[in-house]
Amino acid sequence: MLIDVFPTAAGAEPELLAGKTVLIIDVLRATSTITTALANEAAGVLPVLTIAEAKEAAATFAPGTFLLGGERKALKIPGFDLDNSPRQYSKGIVAGKTIIITTTNGTVAIKQALPAAALLIASFLNARAAAREAWKIGTDIYLLCAGTRNRFSLDDAACAGMLVYYLQELEPEARLGDLAFTLRHLYLAYQKDLPHLISHASHYQRLVALGLEADIAYCLQQNIYDIVPRWDKRQNLIVL
Amino acid sequence: MLIDVFPTAAGAEPELLAGKTVLIIDVLRATSTITTALANEAAGVLPVLTIAEAKEAAATFAPGTFLLGGERKALKIPGFDLDNSPRQYSKGIVAGKTIIITTTNGTVAIKQALPAAALLIASFLNARAAAREAWKIGTDIYLLCAGTRNRFSLDDAACAGMLVYYLQELEPEARLGDLAFTLRHLYLAYQKDLPHLISHASHYQRLVALGLEADIAYCLQQNIYDIVPRWDKRQNLIVL
Repeated sequence: MLIDVFPTAAGAEPELLAGKTVLIIDVLRATSTITTALANEAAGVLPVLTIAEAKEAAATFAPGTFLLGGERKALKIPGFDLDNSPRQYSKGIVAGKTIIITTTNGTVAIKQALPAAALLIASFLNARAAAREAWKIGTDIYLLCAGTRNRFSLDDAACAGMLVYYLQELEPEARLGDLAFTLRHLYLAYQKDLPHLISHASHYQRLVALGLEADIAYCLQQNIYDIVPRWDKRQNLIVL
Repeated sequence: MLIDVFPTAAGAEPELLAGKTVLIIDVLRATSTITTALANEAAGVLPVLTIAEAKEAAATFAPGTFLLGGERKALKIPGFDLDNSPRQYSKGIVAGKTIIITTTNGTVAIKQALPAAALLIASFLNARAAAREAWKIGTDIYLLCAGTRNRFSLDDAACAGMLVYYLQELEPEARLGDLAFTLRHLYLAYQKDLPHLISHASHYQRLVALGLEADIAYCLQQNIYDIVPRWDKRQNLIVL
Protein backbone atom coordinates (compact mmCIF):
# COMPACT_ATOMS: atom_id res chain seq x y z
CA MET A 1 0.00 0.00 0.00
CA LEU A 2 1.28 3.42 -0.99
CA ILE A 3 0.25 6.45 1.06
CA ASP A 4 0.96 9.86 -0.41
CA VAL A 5 -0.14 13.46 -0.20
CA PHE A 6 -0.93 16.09 -2.81
CA PRO A 7 -0.27 19.59 -1.48
CA THR A 8 -3.03 21.18 -3.60
CA ALA A 9 -5.80 20.07 -5.89
CA ALA A 10 -3.95 21.44 -8.92
CA GLY A 11 -1.21 18.82 -8.76
CA ALA A 12 -3.61 15.89 -8.52
CA GLU A 13 -4.26 14.90 -12.10
CA PRO A 14 -7.50 12.90 -12.29
CA GLU A 15 -5.72 9.97 -13.99
CA LEU A 16 -3.40 9.65 -10.96
CA LEU A 17 -6.42 9.39 -8.67
CA ALA A 18 -8.38 6.84 -10.68
CA GLY A 19 -8.60 3.55 -8.82
CA LYS A 20 -7.26 5.04 -5.59
CA THR A 21 -8.85 5.95 -2.29
CA VAL A 22 -8.70 9.71 -1.89
CA LEU A 23 -9.14 11.60 1.36
CA ILE A 24 -10.00 15.26 0.85
CA ILE A 25 -8.64 17.63 3.50
CA ASP A 26 -9.69 21.26 3.88
CA VAL A 27 -9.42 21.80 7.61
CA LEU A 28 -10.20 25.53 7.55
CA ARG A 29 -13.03 24.98 6.83
CA ALA A 30 -14.81 23.06 4.07
CA THR A 31 -14.20 19.47 5.13
CA SER A 32 -14.75 20.38 8.79
CA THR A 33 -18.05 21.96 7.76
CA ILE A 34 -19.16 19.01 5.61
CA THR A 35 -18.30 16.58 8.40
CA THR A 36 -20.25 18.66 10.91
CA ALA A 37 -23.26 18.98 8.62
CA LEU A 38 -23.50 15.21 8.14
CA ALA A 39 -22.84 14.54 11.84
CA ASN A 40 -25.81 16.81 12.44
CA GLU A 41 -28.00 14.74 10.13
CA ALA A 42 -27.97 16.74 6.94
CA ALA A 43 -29.43 14.52 4.19
CA GLY A 44 -26.35 15.05 2.03
CA VAL A 45 -23.89 17.63 0.75
CA LEU A 46 -23.70 18.62 -2.91
CA PRO A 47 -20.38 20.34 -3.73
CA VAL A 48 -20.44 22.73 -6.69
CA LEU A 49 -17.78 24.99 -8.18
CA THR A 50 -19.62 28.23 -8.85
CA ILE A 51 -22.33 30.38 -7.33
CA ALA A 52 -24.34 30.07 -10.55
CA GLU A 53 -24.06 26.28 -10.37
CA ALA A 54 -25.25 26.38 -6.75
CA LYS A 55 -28.35 28.36 -7.73
CA GLU A 56 -29.07 26.06 -10.68
CA ALA A 57 -28.80 23.04 -8.39
CA ALA A 58 -31.07 24.72 -5.85
CA ALA A 59 -33.77 25.14 -8.50
CA THR A 60 -33.99 21.33 -8.80
CA PHE A 61 -34.90 20.90 -5.10
CA ALA A 62 -38.29 21.42 -3.49
CA PRO A 63 -38.44 24.53 -1.27
CA GLY A 64 -37.48 23.80 2.34
CA THR A 65 -35.45 20.68 1.44
CA PHE A 66 -32.10 22.35 0.85
CA LEU A 67 -29.79 25.07 2.11
CA LEU A 68 -27.20 27.06 0.16
CA GLY A 69 -23.84 27.29 1.92
CA GLY A 70 -20.26 28.29 1.29
CA GLU A 71 -17.96 31.26 1.00
CA ARG A 72 -16.03 33.58 -1.23
CA LYS A 73 -13.01 35.29 0.38
CA ALA A 74 -14.02 33.43 3.58
CA LEU A 75 -17.33 35.36 3.78
CA LYS A 76 -20.98 34.37 3.25
CA ILE A 77 -22.20 34.57 -0.34
CA PRO A 78 -25.07 37.09 -0.82
CA GLY A 79 -28.41 35.28 -0.93
CA PHE A 80 -27.02 32.08 0.57
CA ASP A 81 -28.41 30.56 3.78
CA LEU A 82 -25.15 29.67 5.48
CA ASP A 83 -21.50 30.64 5.20
CA ASN A 84 -18.59 28.22 5.59
CA SER A 85 -18.56 28.24 9.39
CA PRO A 86 -19.06 24.68 10.67
CA ARG A 87 -20.63 26.11 13.82
CA GLN A 88 -23.61 27.29 11.77
CA TYR A 89 -24.38 23.75 10.63
CA SER A 90 -26.23 22.73 13.81
CA LYS A 91 -28.79 19.94 13.94
CA GLY A 92 -31.69 22.35 14.25
CA ILE A 93 -30.68 24.03 11.01
CA VAL A 94 -29.37 21.23 8.78
CA ALA A 95 -31.11 18.01 9.85
CA GLY A 96 -32.91 16.43 6.91
CA LYS A 97 -31.73 19.11 4.46
CA THR A 98 -29.41 18.78 1.49
CA ILE A 99 -26.58 21.30 1.67
CA ILE A 100 -25.48 22.78 -1.65
CA ILE A 101 -22.03 24.14 -0.97
CA THR A 102 -19.39 26.08 -2.91
CA THR A 103 -16.07 27.17 -1.40
CA THR A 104 -12.83 28.59 -2.76
CA ASN A 105 -10.61 25.56 -2.18
CA GLY A 106 -12.44 22.61 -0.67
CA THR A 107 -15.16 22.01 -3.22
CA VAL A 108 -12.57 22.41 -6.01
CA ALA A 109 -10.52 19.60 -4.47
CA ILE A 110 -13.58 17.37 -4.14
CA LYS A 111 -14.57 17.89 -7.77
CA GLN A 112 -10.99 17.18 -8.88
CA ALA A 113 -11.08 13.84 -7.07
CA LEU A 114 -14.34 12.48 -8.49
CA PRO A 115 -12.45 9.90 -10.64
CA ALA A 116 -11.16 8.25 -7.46
CA ALA A 117 -12.43 4.76 -6.67
CA ALA A 118 -13.44 6.02 -3.23
CA LEU A 119 -13.62 9.64 -2.12
CA LEU A 120 -13.77 10.36 1.60
CA ILE A 121 -13.93 13.62 3.55
CA ALA A 122 -11.38 14.13 6.34
CA SER A 123 -10.64 16.77 8.93
CA PHE A 124 -9.23 16.84 12.43
CA LEU A 125 -12.81 16.32 13.62
CA ASN A 126 -12.98 12.80 12.15
CA ALA A 127 -9.35 11.96 11.32
CA ARG A 128 -9.14 8.61 13.10
CA ALA A 129 -12.40 7.38 11.58
CA ALA A 130 -11.37 8.62 8.12
CA ALA A 131 -7.99 6.86 8.29
CA ARG A 132 -9.62 3.60 9.39
CA GLU A 133 -12.26 3.78 6.67
CA ALA A 134 -9.69 4.51 3.96
CA TRP A 135 -7.43 1.73 5.16
CA LYS A 136 -10.27 -0.82 5.17
CA ILE A 137 -10.71 -0.28 1.41
CA GLY A 138 -7.22 -1.66 0.86
CA THR A 139 -6.04 0.28 -2.20
CA ASP A 140 -3.32 2.94 -2.37
CA ILE A 141 -4.38 6.06 -0.49
CA TYR A 142 -3.87 9.64 -1.61
CA LEU A 143 -4.49 12.48 0.76
CA LEU A 144 -5.55 15.49 -1.26
CA CYS A 145 -5.05 18.78 0.55
CA ALA A 146 -7.27 21.56 -0.73
CA GLY A 147 -4.59 24.11 0.06
CA THR A 148 -5.26 27.81 -0.08
CA ARG A 149 -5.62 29.43 -3.48
CA ASN A 150 -3.56 26.68 -5.02
CA ARG A 151 -0.75 26.91 -2.45
CA PHE A 152 0.42 24.45 0.20
CA SER A 153 -1.40 25.23 3.47
CA LEU A 154 -0.05 24.30 6.88
CA ASP A 155 -3.46 23.54 8.39
CA ASP A 156 -4.25 20.91 5.78
CA ALA A 157 -0.66 19.67 5.88
CA ALA A 158 -0.83 19.06 9.63
CA CYS A 159 -4.05 17.09 9.24
CA ALA A 160 -2.51 15.10 6.38
CA GLY A 161 0.45 14.29 8.62
CA MET A 162 -1.93 13.07 11.33
CA LEU A 163 -3.75 10.88 8.82
CA VAL A 164 -0.46 9.42 7.54
CA TYR A 165 0.47 8.67 11.13
CA TYR A 166 -2.84 6.90 11.78
CA LEU A 167 -2.62 5.01 8.48
CA GLN A 168 0.87 3.80 9.24
CA GLU A 169 -0.32 2.56 12.63
CA LEU A 170 -2.89 0.49 10.74
CA GLU A 171 -0.49 -0.59 7.95
CA PRO A 172 3.08 -0.48 9.28
CA GLU A 173 4.49 -1.78 5.99
CA ALA A 174 2.84 0.94 3.91
CA ARG A 175 5.18 2.82 1.60
CA LEU A 176 5.12 6.57 2.22
CA GLY A 177 5.51 9.01 -0.64
CA ASP A 178 7.88 11.95 -0.18
CA LEU A 179 5.29 14.43 1.06
CA ALA A 180 3.59 11.81 3.25
CA PHE A 181 6.97 11.16 4.91
CA THR A 182 7.56 14.89 5.40
CA LEU A 183 4.14 15.64 6.87
CA ARG A 184 4.06 12.63 9.19
CA HIS A 185 7.29 14.02 10.57
CA LEU A 186 5.79 17.50 10.95
CA TYR A 187 2.75 16.09 12.73
CA LEU A 188 4.85 14.06 15.16
CA ALA A 189 6.97 17.09 16.01
CA TYR A 190 3.89 19.18 16.84
CA GLN A 191 1.26 16.65 17.87
CA LYS A 192 1.14 17.95 21.43
CA ASP A 193 0.57 21.50 20.26
CA LEU A 194 -1.22 21.56 16.93
CA PRO A 195 -2.75 25.01 17.54
CA HIS A 196 0.78 26.41 17.83
CA LEU A 197 1.79 24.77 14.55
CA ILE A 198 -1.29 25.95 12.73
CA SER A 199 -0.91 29.49 14.04
CA HIS A 200 1.99 29.72 11.55
CA ALA A 201 -0.35 29.09 8.60
CA SER A 202 -0.99 32.13 6.48
CA HIS A 203 -4.58 30.93 6.01
CA TYR A 204 -4.98 30.86 9.81
CA GLN A 205 -3.80 34.44 9.99
CA ARG A 206 -6.33 35.49 7.36
CA LEU A 207 -9.20 33.87 9.27
CA VAL A 208 -8.09 35.44 12.56
CA ALA A 209 -8.05 38.84 10.84
CA LEU A 210 -11.70 38.20 9.93
CA GLY A 211 -12.56 37.41 13.56
CA LEU A 212 -13.03 33.68 12.95
CA GLU A 213 -11.01 32.37 15.93
CA ALA A 214 -13.99 30.38 17.23
CA ASP A 215 -14.20 28.52 13.90
CA ILE A 216 -10.51 27.70 14.07
CA ALA A 217 -10.80 26.39 17.64
CA TYR A 218 -13.75 24.26 16.56
CA CYS A 219 -11.93 22.84 13.50
CA LEU A 220 -8.83 21.89 15.53
CA GLN A 221 -10.76 19.53 17.79
CA GLN A 222 -9.48 16.02 17.18
CA ASN A 223 -11.64 12.96 16.60
CA ILE A 224 -14.89 14.31 18.01
CA TYR A 225 -16.87 12.55 15.26
CA ASP A 226 -16.72 8.88 14.39
CA ILE A 227 -18.23 9.36 10.93
CA VAL A 228 -16.75 9.54 7.43
CA PRO A 229 -18.59 11.46 4.72
CA ARG A 230 -18.10 9.86 1.30
CA TRP A 231 -18.99 10.65 -2.28
CA ASP A 232 -21.83 8.46 -3.49
CA LYS A 233 -21.52 8.08 -7.27
CA ARG A 234 -25.13 6.99 -7.71
CA GLN A 235 -26.68 9.81 -5.71
CA ASN A 236 -24.03 12.34 -6.85
CA LEU A 237 -23.92 13.50 -3.28
CA ILE A 238 -21.70 13.37 -0.20
CA VAL A 239 -23.42 11.20 2.38
CA LEU A 240 -22.57 8.98 5.34
CA MET B 1 10.82 39.87 3.24
CA LEU B 2 8.72 36.82 2.46
CA ILE B 3 10.44 33.48 1.92
CA ASP B 4 8.37 30.67 0.46
CA VAL B 5 8.70 27.42 -1.42
CA PHE B 6 6.89 25.95 -4.40
CA PRO B 7 6.91 22.15 -4.28
CA THR B 8 6.92 21.80 -8.08
CA ALA B 9 7.20 24.01 -11.12
CA ALA B 10 3.55 23.43 -11.99
CA GLY B 11 2.26 25.40 -9.01
CA ALA B 12 4.45 28.41 -9.69
CA GLU B 13 2.39 30.63 -11.95
CA PRO B 14 4.70 33.03 -13.79
CA GLU B 15 2.72 36.05 -12.53
CA LEU B 16 3.48 35.02 -8.92
CA LEU B 17 7.20 34.95 -9.70
CA ALA B 18 7.39 38.29 -11.49
CA GLY B 19 9.42 40.79 -9.48
CA LYS B 20 10.69 38.13 -7.08
CA THR B 21 14.03 36.44 -6.61
CA VAL B 22 13.65 32.77 -7.49
CA LEU B 23 16.06 30.03 -6.52
CA ILE B 24 15.69 26.91 -8.66
CA ILE B 25 16.38 23.62 -6.88
CA ASP B 26 16.80 20.27 -8.62
CA VAL B 27 19.29 18.50 -6.39
CA LEU B 28 19.18 15.16 -8.24
CA ARG B 29 20.59 16.32 -10.56
CA ALA B 30 20.02 19.31 -12.87
CA THR B 31 20.96 22.21 -10.61
CA SER B 32 23.89 20.24 -9.17
CA THR B 33 25.06 19.62 -12.73
CA ILE B 34 24.65 23.24 -13.84
CA THR B 35 26.52 24.47 -10.76
CA THR B 36 29.32 21.99 -11.40
CA ALA B 37 29.57 22.90 -15.08
CA LEU B 38 29.95 26.60 -14.30
CA ALA B 39 32.34 25.93 -11.42
CA ASN B 40 34.40 24.05 -14.01
CA GLU B 41 34.44 27.07 -16.29
CA ALA B 42 31.77 26.26 -18.82
CA ALA B 43 31.04 29.44 -20.78
CA GLY B 44 27.34 29.20 -19.97
CA VAL B 45 24.39 26.83 -19.75
CA LEU B 46 21.40 27.08 -22.07
CA PRO B 47 18.35 25.24 -20.68
CA VAL B 48 15.84 24.01 -23.26
CA LEU B 49 12.65 21.99 -22.90
CA THR B 50 12.85 19.47 -25.73
CA ILE B 51 15.42 17.38 -27.54
CA ALA B 52 14.42 19.03 -30.81
CA GLU B 53 14.96 22.46 -29.27
CA ALA B 54 18.38 21.37 -28.04
CA LYS B 55 19.40 20.31 -31.55
CA GLU B 56 18.06 23.53 -33.06
CA ALA B 57 20.04 25.55 -30.54
CA ALA B 58 23.15 23.49 -31.25
CA ALA B 59 22.88 24.39 -34.96
CA THR B 60 23.42 28.06 -34.06
CA PHE B 61 26.79 27.38 -32.39
CA ALA B 62 30.14 26.88 -34.11
CA PRO B 63 31.38 23.27 -33.92
CA GLY B 64 33.52 22.64 -30.85
CA THR B 65 32.02 25.52 -28.86
CA PHE B 66 29.12 23.66 -27.29
CA LEU B 67 28.11 20.38 -25.73
CA LEU B 68 24.68 18.75 -25.64
CA GLY B 69 23.73 17.44 -22.19
CA GLY B 70 20.75 16.16 -20.24
CA GLU B 71 18.57 13.15 -19.71
CA ARG B 72 15.31 11.43 -20.37
CA LYS B 73 14.24 8.87 -17.75
CA ALA B 74 17.55 9.67 -15.99
CA LEU B 75 19.58 8.33 -18.94
CA LYS B 76 21.73 9.96 -21.62
CA ILE B 77 19.88 11.14 -24.70
CA PRO B 78 21.01 9.40 -27.93
CA GLY B 79 23.40 11.62 -29.87
CA PHE B 80 24.09 13.91 -26.90
CA ASP B 81 27.61 14.47 -25.54
CA LEU B 82 26.83 14.25 -21.85
CA ASP B 83 24.10 12.88 -19.64
CA ASN B 84 22.84 14.58 -16.46
CA SER B 85 25.63 13.29 -14.20
CA PRO B 86 27.45 16.26 -12.64
CA ARG B 87 30.58 14.13 -12.41
CA GLN B 88 30.84 14.18 -16.21
CA TYR B 89 31.05 17.96 -16.29
CA SER B 90 34.76 18.16 -15.44
CA LYS B 91 36.97 21.10 -16.32
CA GLY B 92 38.73 19.19 -19.08
CA ILE B 93 35.43 18.54 -20.80
CA VAL B 94 33.35 21.68 -20.22
CA ALA B 95 35.77 24.59 -19.82
CA GLY B 96 35.03 27.29 -22.37
CA LYS B 97 32.04 25.43 -23.84
CA THR B 98 28.37 26.37 -23.77
CA ILE B 99 26.27 23.52 -22.39
CA ILE B 100 22.87 23.08 -24.03
CA ILE B 101 20.89 21.05 -21.53
CA THR B 102 17.43 19.48 -21.36
CA THR B 103 16.18 17.47 -18.38
CA THR B 104 12.82 16.12 -17.25
CA ASN B 105 12.27 18.39 -14.28
CA GLY B 106 15.05 20.94 -13.77
CA THR B 107 15.03 22.74 -17.08
CA VAL B 108 11.22 22.89 -16.95
CA ALA B 109 11.43 24.70 -13.61
CA ILE B 110 14.03 27.12 -14.95
CA LYS B 111 11.91 27.98 -17.99
CA GLN B 112 8.86 28.47 -15.75
CA ALA B 113 10.75 31.00 -13.67
CA LEU B 114 12.08 33.23 -16.46
CA PRO B 115 9.65 36.05 -15.49
CA ALA B 116 11.39 36.34 -12.11
CA ALA B 117 13.35 39.54 -11.45
CA ALA B 118 16.35 37.38 -10.57
CA LEU B 119 16.72 33.66 -11.23
CA LEU B 120 19.47 31.80 -9.38
CA ILE B 121 20.51 28.15 -9.43
CA ALA B 122 20.81 26.36 -6.08
CA SER B 123 21.83 22.93 -4.87
CA PHE B 124 23.49 21.50 -1.77
CA LEU B 125 26.79 22.14 -3.55
CA ASN B 126 26.36 25.92 -3.38
CA ALA B 127 23.50 26.43 -0.91
CA ARG B 128 25.16 28.94 1.38
CA ALA B 129 26.39 31.08 -1.52
CA ALA B 130 22.97 30.90 -3.20
CA ALA B 131 21.15 31.98 -0.03
CA ARG B 132 23.52 34.90 0.49
CA GLU B 133 23.23 36.04 -3.13
CA ALA B 134 19.41 35.85 -3.07
CA TRP B 135 19.24 37.70 0.23
CA LYS B 136 21.50 40.52 -1.03
CA ILE B 137 18.94 41.33 -3.75
CA GLY B 138 16.44 42.25 -1.03
CA THR B 139 13.10 41.26 -2.62
CA ASP B 140 10.80 38.42 -1.58
CA ILE B 141 12.40 35.06 -2.29
CA TYR B 142 10.69 32.01 -3.75
CA LEU B 143 12.43 28.67 -3.74
CA LEU B 144 11.17 26.71 -6.70
CA CYS B 145 11.67 22.96 -6.34
CA ALA B 146 11.75 21.14 -9.65
CA GLY B 147 10.18 18.09 -8.04
CA THR B 148 9.97 14.79 -9.84
CA ARG B 149 7.45 14.46 -12.63
CA ASN B 150 5.37 17.21 -11.12
CA ARG B 151 5.38 15.72 -7.61
CA PHE B 152 6.96 16.97 -4.38
CA SER B 153 10.44 15.45 -4.06
CA LEU B 154 12.21 14.99 -0.74
CA ASP B 155 15.69 15.71 -2.12
CA ASP B 156 14.68 19.15 -3.38
CA ALA B 157 12.58 19.72 -0.26
CA ALA B 158 15.55 19.07 2.04
CA CYS B 159 17.69 21.53 0.07
CA ALA B 160 14.87 24.10 0.17
CA GLY B 161 14.70 23.66 3.94
CA MET B 162 18.45 24.26 4.19
CA LEU B 163 18.14 27.42 2.08
CA VAL B 164 15.25 28.69 4.23
CA TYR B 165 17.40 28.07 7.30
CA TYR B 166 20.33 30.01 5.81
CA LEU B 167 18.03 32.81 4.65
CA GLN B 168 16.48 33.17 8.08
CA GLU B 169 19.95 33.39 9.60
CA LEU B 170 20.57 36.34 7.27
CA GLU B 171 17.11 37.89 7.75
CA PRO B 172 15.71 36.81 11.14
CA GLU B 173 12.55 38.86 10.66
CA ALA B 174 11.69 37.28 7.32
CA ARG B 175 8.17 35.93 7.06
CA LEU B 176 8.07 32.24 6.14
CA GLY B 177 5.33 30.85 3.95
CA ASP B 178 3.67 27.60 4.99
CA LEU B 179 5.92 25.28 3.01
CA ALA B 180 9.05 27.25 3.92
CA PHE B 181 8.15 26.80 7.59
CA THR B 182 7.56 23.08 7.08
CA LEU B 183 10.78 22.40 5.19
CA ARG B 184 13.01 24.46 7.50
CA HIS B 185 11.68 22.22 10.23
CA LEU B 186 12.41 19.08 8.19
CA TYR B 187 15.95 20.26 7.47
CA LEU B 188 16.68 21.04 11.11
CA ALA B 189 15.44 17.61 12.18
CA TYR B 190 17.76 15.87 9.71
CA GLN B 191 20.64 18.29 9.20
CA LYS B 192 23.13 15.92 10.80
CA ASP B 193 22.10 13.09 8.51
CA LEU B 194 20.82 14.40 5.21
CA PRO B 195 21.72 11.22 3.31
CA HIS B 196 19.42 9.28 5.61
CA LEU B 197 16.58 11.74 4.97
CA ILE B 198 17.08 11.70 1.25
CA SER B 199 17.25 7.92 1.13
CA HIS B 200 13.47 8.08 1.73
CA ALA B 201 12.94 10.00 -1.52
CA SER B 202 11.33 7.95 -4.24
CA HIS B 203 13.53 9.77 -6.78
CA TYR B 204 16.60 8.64 -4.80
CA GLN B 205 15.41 5.08 -5.01
CA ARG B 206 14.97 5.35 -8.76
CA LEU B 207 18.51 6.67 -9.23
CA VAL B 208 19.96 3.95 -6.98
CA ALA B 209 18.15 1.36 -9.08
CA LEU B 210 19.98 2.82 -12.09
CA GLY B 211 23.35 2.47 -10.33
CA LEU B 212 23.78 6.22 -9.82
CA GLU B 213 24.83 6.16 -6.14
CA ALA B 214 28.06 8.03 -6.91
CA ASP B 215 26.05 10.89 -8.43
CA ILE B 216 23.87 11.05 -5.33
CA ALA B 217 26.88 11.13 -3.01
CA TYR B 218 28.35 13.91 -5.13
CA CYS B 219 25.13 15.97 -5.11
CA LEU B 220 24.73 15.72 -1.33
CA GLN B 221 28.02 17.46 -0.63
CA GLN B 222 27.28 20.74 1.12
CA ASN B 223 28.74 24.12 0.18
CA ILE B 224 31.71 22.91 -1.83
CA TYR B 225 31.24 25.74 -4.34
CA ASP B 226 31.07 29.41 -3.52
CA ILE B 227 29.43 30.34 -6.84
CA VAL B 228 25.85 31.09 -7.87
CA PRO B 229 24.76 30.48 -11.46
CA ARG B 230 22.17 33.02 -12.58
CA TRP B 231 20.01 33.59 -15.61
CA ASP B 232 21.31 36.46 -17.71
CA LYS B 233 18.39 38.01 -19.59
CA ARG B 234 20.59 39.72 -22.17
CA GLN B 235 22.66 36.68 -23.04
CA ASN B 236 19.67 34.28 -22.61
CA LEU B 237 22.06 32.02 -20.78
CA ILE B 238 22.89 30.79 -17.29
CA VAL B 239 26.26 32.22 -16.32
CA LEU B 240 28.22 33.19 -13.21
